[in-house]
Amino acid sequence: MLKEAIKNICMPDEIYFEKSKERIDNLIKPKGSLGKLEGICSKLSSIQKNIFPEVDKKSIIVFAADHGIFEEGVAITPRDVTLIQAVNMTKGLTGVCALAKQSGSEVIVVDVGIDSDYKNEKIVDRKLMKGTRNFTKGPAMDYETAVKSIEVGIEMAYREYEKGVKMIGIGEMGIGNTTPSAAITAVFGGYSAREVTWLGANLPMDRLEKKIDVVKMGIDLNKPNKLDAIDVLAKVGGLEIGAMAGAMIGAAAKGMPVVIDGFICTVAAIIATSIEPKVKEYIITSHYSMEKGAKLASDILGIEPSLKLDLRLGEGSGAAVMFNVIDSAVCMNKYMVTFDEGGFRL
Amino acid sequence: MLKEAIKNICMPDEIYFEKSKERIDNLIKPKGSLGKLEGICSKLSSIQKNIFPEVDKKSIIVFAADHGIFEEGVAITPRDVTLIQAVNMTKGLTGVCALAKQSGSEVIVVDVGIDSDYKNEKIVDRKLMKGTRNFTKGPAMDYETAVKSIEVGIEMAYREYEKGVKMIGIGEMGIGNTTPSAAITAVFGGYSAREVTWLGANLPMDRLEKKIDVVKMGIDLNKPNKLDAIDVLAKVGGLEIGAMAGAMIGAAAKGMPVVIDGFICTVAAIIATSIEPKVKEYIITSHYSMEKGAKLASDILGIEPSLKLDLRLGEGSGAAVMFNVIDSAVCMNKYMVTFDEGGFRL
Repeated sequence: MLKEAIKNICMPDEIYFEKSKERIDNLIKPKGSLGKLEGICSKLSSIQKNIFPEVDKKSIIVFAADHGIFEEGVAITPRDVTLIQAVNMTKGLTGVCALAKQSGSEVIVVDVGIDSDYKNEKIVDRKLMKGTRNFTKGPAMDYETAVKSIEVGIEMAYREYEKGVKMIGIGEMGIGNTTPSAAITAVFGGYSAREVTWLGANLPMDRLEKKIDVVKMGIDLNKPNKLDAIDVLAKVGGLEIGAMAGAMIGAAAKGMPVVIDGFICTVAAIIATSIEPKVKEYIITSHYSMEKGAKLASDILGIEPSLKLDLRLGEGSGAAVMFNVIDSAVCMNKYMVTFDEGGFRL
Repeated sequence: MLKEAIKNICMPDEIYFEKSKERIDNLIKPKGSLGKLEGICSKLSSIQKNIFPEVDKKSIIVFAADHGIFEEGVAITPRDVTLIQAVNMTKGLTGVCALAKQSGSEVIVVDVGIDSDYKNEKIVDRKLMKGTRNFTKGPAMDYETAVKSIEVGIEMAYREYEKGVKMIGIGEMGIGNTTPSAAITAVFGGYSAREVTWLGANLPMDRLEKKIDVVKMGIDLNKPNKLDAIDVLAKVGGLEIGAMAGAMIGAAAKGMPVVIDGFICTVAAIIATSIEPKVKEYIITSHYSMEKGAKLASDILGIEPSLKLDLRLGEGSGAAVMFNVIDSAVCMNKYMVTFDEGGFRL
């Protein structure tokens, strides 16, 4: 399924990018004066092969999973919060739900590895493991499971596509997941554990050294090979991180733009684009996360975010806010006229 | 009218700020993890004296005026574009109109000094002069006219308030107005003309030196007194800049939050807060303008913007995009639950 998806990813249509750019350059404003809104609109045009792109139907897929690394004391939030918040999401009560409602989008919650037996029909059950293993003692998951986690994401992106969704946002819920994200950033960027590790959800400062050690141990012990992103994902990653990467690959395969969130999502994007560089053409960034590694992860990915809101919630919250900005880009193109259309010259 | 307005400006209610912060701290998320959205919501609460603030009805007031300094060759856009675009705004065709439509807000166009005789019932006629005078030859306007320009802004903010508007955005249209904005920034920040002057709407690089000279000449000749903001406005400012400052003062007097746009608007905010520092409590910033002086102007004002979209259109375009982010802040508070309300602990 992964191979098939990768095979289906085309480059967006450059001709439509140029056509869109030409129109936007001729809208009644100084050339380039609407900055990133212009680029976003042309990107959507090239993806949708339409100089009037539309992204009316949107959803945010939130992947939830637990982390074996939690037992090393890298987070202060209790581990069962992964499940509690996944359930709260199905009730519309969490941050991403509130922001998704504002931006007119739906939230889908997928269990790809929550460490609990429970029944909840509103959570899509794709549990592959009851959380990853502690990567200071060996790989977080098998290579094959890492592939499966990516395939869960692909499947979910396809499902949204089939529902008529035009753009997806990606989010996550997984207590402890800034630790694997730091490790992945260190591996791909060649950074030290210290450079990429920070406090996540309010870890007390006196526990930071321990978290840095954990990241370092995971890398030293497992020796992830950055030339094989799936190897990195398996050894020091997370199930939701794999699924997020998969959803990006799936979106690209179906020709859907995909909006990423903060640190963990950016790390997943590094994995997705490392597996298939063309995925990058379908990614739209959202915000600068407050987490230290986020800036470095964005640098590796090579796309600058647009929102500076000091968010560090995750869940896809930044993607939900960004949906508005993308709507703004679409509306700029839809409602403004060109000099010719308006029958005048400035 | 200006004195009366200033007298009516109260500090927002700190108790409501604290009450709002307390609730937001107890929403089901890590404390502080929704960053600036949290601060914006508490600010709205303190202004509206309501822990569930609402900003459903919004409008953007665009003040248009011409600039005598245009004759020095500081802009390449023809001067009559000020009027052409003001008219296009009444037809819903320009950038701010498209973005305002997206964010569900109305656009009001006010002529405070367009250099033209014309008839257009949709433009609010408050013309004080047919453009300012060339400030390399003397003050841009009389002190009294500067006061009047501020009063036009106050009146317009009051009008919106009386229509039931809950939040206003401020924009401008005035070919040549990055030049007075640079001059005002230099005066208030103690910067050289070179430090604050940039290309505005695509001025060719080889004309930059001339623009810098013009800014320097205006300051050297007129010697604006930065301890009297109205003196600065009169000597090297613009009619629309005065009106924008006035609209901020008027909004504050009526207890309405006011969203500022890019460089020119930030400069107007410096004038407004210099006249009455409490106005700052009602201001919400939007984007980092691409214009060189904008960063310095933001520093003088002391409020950091949230959007990094490389906009440099003006018209209030950034304020229109920001309306969505403010809606996100309101919805965060409205739709998320606290631990107590949800009957659970994380």
